[in-house]
Amino acid sequence: MTEVIVLNGGSSSGKSGIVRCLQATLPDPWLAVGVDTLIEAMPASMRTSDAGIEFAPDGTVLVGPEFRLLEAAWIEGVAAMARAGARVIVDEVFLGGAASQQRWRKALDGLRVLWVGVRCESAIAAGREIARGDRITGMAASQADVVHQGVKYDVAVDTTKTEAMECARIIAAHVARSLPNTY
Amino acid sequence: MTEVIVLNGGSSSGKSGIVRCLQATLPDPWLAVGVDTLIEAMPASMRTSDAGIEFAPDGTVLVGPEFRLLEAAWIEGVAAMARAGARVIVDEVFLGGAASQQRWRKALDGLRVLWVGVRCESAIAAGREIARGDRITGMAASQADVVHQGVKYDVAVDTTKTEAMECARIIAAHVARSLPNTY
Amino acid sequence: MTEVIVLNGGSSSGKSGIVRCLQATLPDPWLAVGVDTLIEAMPASMRTSDAGIEFAPDGTVLVGPEFRLLEAAWIEGVAAMARAGARVIVDEVFLGGAASQQRWRKALDGLRVLWVGVRCESAIAAGREIARGDRITGMAASQADVVHQGVKYDVAVDTTKTEAMECARIIAAHVARSLPNTY
Amino acid sequence: MTEVIVLNGGSSSGKSGIVRCLQATLPDPWLAVGVDTLIEAMPASMRTSDAGIEFAPDGTVLVGPEFRLLEAAWIEGVAAMARAGARVIVDEVFLGGAASQQRWRKALDGLRVLWVGVRCESAIAAGREIARGDRITGMAASQADVVHQGVKYDVAVDTTKTEAMECARIIAAHVARSLPNTY
Repeated sequence: MTEVIVLNGGSSSGKSGIVRCLQATLPDPWLAVGVDTLIEAMPASMRTSDAGIEFAPDGTVLVGPEFRLLEAAWIEGVAAMARAGARVIVDEVFLGGAASQQRWRKALDGLRVLWVGVRCESAIAAGREIARGDRITGMAASQADVVHQGVKYDVAVDTTKTEAMECARIIAAHVARSLPNTY
Repeated sequence: MTEVIVLNGGSSSGKSGIVRCLQATLPDPWLAVGVDTLIEAMPASMRTSDAGIEFAPDGTVLVGPEFRLLEAAWIEGVAAMARAGARVIVDEVFLGGAASQQRWRKALDGLRVLWVGVRCESAIAAGREIARGDRITGMAASQADVVHQGVKYDVAVDTTKTEAMECARIIAAHVARSLPNTY
Repeated sequence: MTEVIVLNGGSSSGKSGIVRCLQATLPDPWLAVGVDTLIEAMPASMRTSDAGIEFAPDGTVLVGPEFRLLEAAWIEGVAAMARAGARVIVDEVFLGGAASQQRWRKALDGLRVLWVGVRCESAIAAGREIARGDRITGMAASQADVVHQGVKYDVAVDTTKTEAMECARIIAAHVARSLPNTY
Repeated sequence: MTEVIVLNGGSSSGKSGIVRCLQATLPDPWLAVGVDTLIEAMPASMRTSDAGIEFAPDGTVLVGPEFRLLEAAWIEGVAAMARAGARVIVDEVFLGGAASQQRWRKALDGLRVLWVGVRCESAIAAGREIARGDRITGMAASQADVVHQGVKYDVAVDTTKTEAMECARIIAAHVARSLPNTY
């Protein structure tokens, strides 16, 4: 039985909607955490300093050493929640591609993980970013492809023409039969 | 030249996303107001009393006499903004169908209005309602059809398979050539 | 009987809390609008352009000509809501001091207005700005005094040592007996 | 050196403001988590079911068995974040008083914890609840005293007449010299 679902995709690819549909669809209660949760937990000053996380006006995201330290401890904490019995959905943006997946893989060692890729055509994601109105323009386009580089998935969905609820059903069908964390 | 754009559609039909795309697409700056703005402007007590607006657990929305009085004054105010020179986009849910449109038509008398219907298949809107996670489940399904009954439009869009940005472009193409308010 | 209450004070002086307490305290339902409502109604692009409104990193707010045009029409609209029978509370920041008040005074001509000054010691407001966590640091300090320059009030409250609910009660006591707009 | 700061206080006692001031005041970056974070991480259905958490119209909060299970795992996760090197501030409401503290004490075993009580006179907290406008009326009054029953603190602050920033400074002065978790 799957213990952790990790969703990876660029900004405005529709991950959060899929997470909420998964929580509504899956029979057990699942906790949902993610990089947005982490950023909100950090001091406001970390959102604007070189050492923390910076959102450039063109949508590029720069991550500094202090952010990485807190993030590493936070990832350990999320893994511990799963080991303590909570089923956890992680909503992530692998800015470092395969290297980011590797960080999670190590922390989740021994847990049964379902790795899910959430794709969306860059131009469509850029339009949805404007429709949302609460994100810096350019993040969607700059992240659409790079976050998937070298990342391995158990299942991939594409929100370009598939609704969040339908994506959640596809993912949920893989939850029951998932095997131990192998990537 | 269009002075007011009125978008009408059920909850979770995607109106707000279209509004933001319209604001980003149209060459002039447009003000966006709507029933959500109005509800936020009201006292908290109006959101739970019989005289105000009530959101039943099944998604039904009941509107009382005190709500209607404030709403009528608010509609007059929105019309006055347009007469004073602001281009205005109104994001509305015509719970009363044709009667609701009639209320706006009277208030907007003399202004050039583009009436836009925003449709979305009921089942799809219900799925998006869950994906948003901030609305009472059932509103999307209960409003999907009823808000369009007897309402006349200059242009209609359907978000079931059309992105918000594409809908905005379709509407924007009608803005230039719209005629005086005739419905 | 007062038809419009205009609250003026700097950022983080506690106006919004007083507004909500007024809405809960006053016997009739009052609509609450304000400069935050206006900014949200504007296109996102107006929040970053020279012609719109700019929030400098030091907390200074710069307002351009396109913002002023939309604002003027919006003020007319708010006045029209009051003339159409809605009691309205306006939550404002008079960046231009007496000149800002003059703009509202003209628009509200003929209506019975209660002008309320909301003060808060600059250092205390700056601390509350940090405690809120959703405002640019520096706005509270830079606005604390300048917004009151040359402005005339019917009643003034100071949130430095007075709770929002107590301020609301002081203001509410003036609502019944207020005279026609005379400033 | 303190590794975890646990703030306990009733709804609208001003904990979140103190947390943000602490994050701005303390020299190192601290992660802030709390019961609000946990509730947001849960499925929407948990917020309305008997097994989850229920907010009664009078402000009473009822917590069911499924909520307790997820909460227990989440607490383990927060402790693991601290053990992995993140300094963590926990923003909590000990609905069960001493029993709630005991749950955290066990999970935080071996970590240096600063236990902080955040008090606010019931009537003042109730007024601030109305001023905030986003909480169910009655929570502040019903929680003001009960959450402190039998709970032991290293330091206590009272927001009735003390600003959040001043409370943060008082707490910060205890951070440096705090001893290992002894309660």
